[in-house]
Amino acid sequence: MMEKLDKNLQDLMWQARERTLRQMQTSFEVDQKTQFNDLVTTVDKDNERFIDQALKKIDPTSQIISEEGFGDQVSSLKGRVYIVDPIDGTLNFVKQKTNFAIMLACYEDGQPKLGYIMDVMNKRLYHGGPELGVWCNDTQLTAPQNLSLRDSLIDINHGILLSSKYDLQTVLKHASGLRLYGSAGIEMINVLEGRLGMYLSYLKPWDLAAGRVLAETLGLVVKSIDKPSLDVLSSNFVLVATKQVATDVFALVN
Amino acid sequence: MMEKLDKNLQDLMWQARERTLRQMQTSFEVDQKTQFNDLVTTVDKDNERFIDQALKKIDPTSQIISEEGFGDQVSSLKGRVYIVDPIDGTLNFVKQKTNFAIMLACYEDGQPKLGYIMDVMNKRLYHGGPELGVWCNDTQLTAPQNLSLRDSLIDINHGILLSSKYDLQTVLKHASGLRLYGSAGIEMINVLEGRLGMYLSYLKPWDLAAGRVLAETLGLVVKSIDKPSLDVLSSNFVLVATKQVATDVFALVN
Repeated sequence: MMEKLDKNLQDLMWQARERTLRQMQTSFEVDQKTQFNDLVTTVDKDNERFIDQALKKIDPTSQIISEEGFGDQVSSLKGRVYIVDPIDGTLNFVKQKTNFAIMLACYEDGQPKLGYIMDVMNKRLYHGGPELGVWCNDTQLTAPQNLSLRDSLIDINHGILLSSKYDLQTVLKHASGLRLYGSAGIEMINVLEGRLGMYLSYLKPWDLAAGRVLAETLGLVVKSIDKPSLDVLSSNFVLVATKQVATDVFALVN
Repeated sequence: MMEKLDKNLQDLMWQARERTLRQMQTSFEVDQKTQFNDLVTTVDKDNERFIDQALKKIDPTSQIISEEGFGDQVSSLKGRVYIVDPIDGTLNFVKQKTNFAIMLACYEDGQPKLGYIMDVMNKRLYHGGPELGVWCNDTQLTAPQNLSLRDSLIDINHGILLSSKYDLQTVLKHASGLRLYGSAGIEMINVLEGRLGMYLSYLKPWDLAAGRVLAETLGLVVKSIDKPSLDVLSSNFVLVATKQVATDVFALVN
């Protein structure tokens, strides 16, 4: 069952990639959401409608949470819930035409089951879950090295970093350096691949859901900074990190 | 003459890339320079010796400035001077195995003539100069769109940003967003390609020399933040930006 579903969802992610590339060749519209650098495009909306409709065919009794509002009003995590980010890193998508992702996660009764992060321009689908392992296309990933904070490049959302909240500038001083790529999906991929020791940001459900499945499957820590547990249905101030980095960071922020 | 020299230098950059990839397959040593996150490897040193020796054959009467100290003691810019960064972004090279560059520039009587930035892992050589134009491998680049600060993603060295020097946090508030890739060469490529509207950092001669040639050739602004002119032989606190971003930033920092 899980393998069949996974196969269907992988196919869906590759179809969504093809649609995205096709739309990048034509003109698409860009609109502001809350402010000048919070954007949405007709590609975000088209991808979301396409993915949501496909999910309803693949898994008719499921519920869908998706960024641009074409999904369901989900208040319970009972059964299977899909969480969709049709374009993650829309600012990069518009300004850079690279460094963005399409993300999809499947949770069952609140438990992370399957995660998908498509790095569209590099043609790499990160996929898997606790029952399947984590893969980049056809290659299985092993757990990244358990690096310390000192030995790690890290990514901290710059708004949070500059606000001095939780003294994250001290955390940064203990790390090897700061990197910022501008897409939760791309940052997660870098943590999964061991190129970043931590990603720390304020993440909405669709920013976190897929990366969490894959990171936890690889034994990485996904933990709220300010709450006892993660909430699948709302935003989390969260780190995704190696075990050692998580230990080092919580020793500094507590 | 310029075409012949350019051809030889392009060949040299591809050879340096091959050597780098070969050495990444074997084990190499990593040493600290000034502190725990300022690294040098045996690959940096081997590349520099190889490039410096090749330059002495290609252009025997020239002088060489190179990062790890195998070049000449250069105090005059008379004649041709080569400026070499054997691995730019050594921290990325060690921790990420990607997002680093090999850089080479040729200045004649102090004037920028030829620049080369090799994005090793993406197999892309950015090359050219005022007489040749700017190329990525075999494709000529056109000038990036003259975006404003508000419409641009920008890169500001995080040490300078956090220090509040020149109120760069205000500059950032006027931009679309912050990105940090951790290699001057990779940041420069992103400005050349129009994916970043500005790169602002404190740069040593080998961090700046090649990118400056290519950026100025494309009509981008390369300008010191705190001095009347750029100094090829020493460090510069410098921005590389579109004309409009440079205007917008100088209006805010002055």
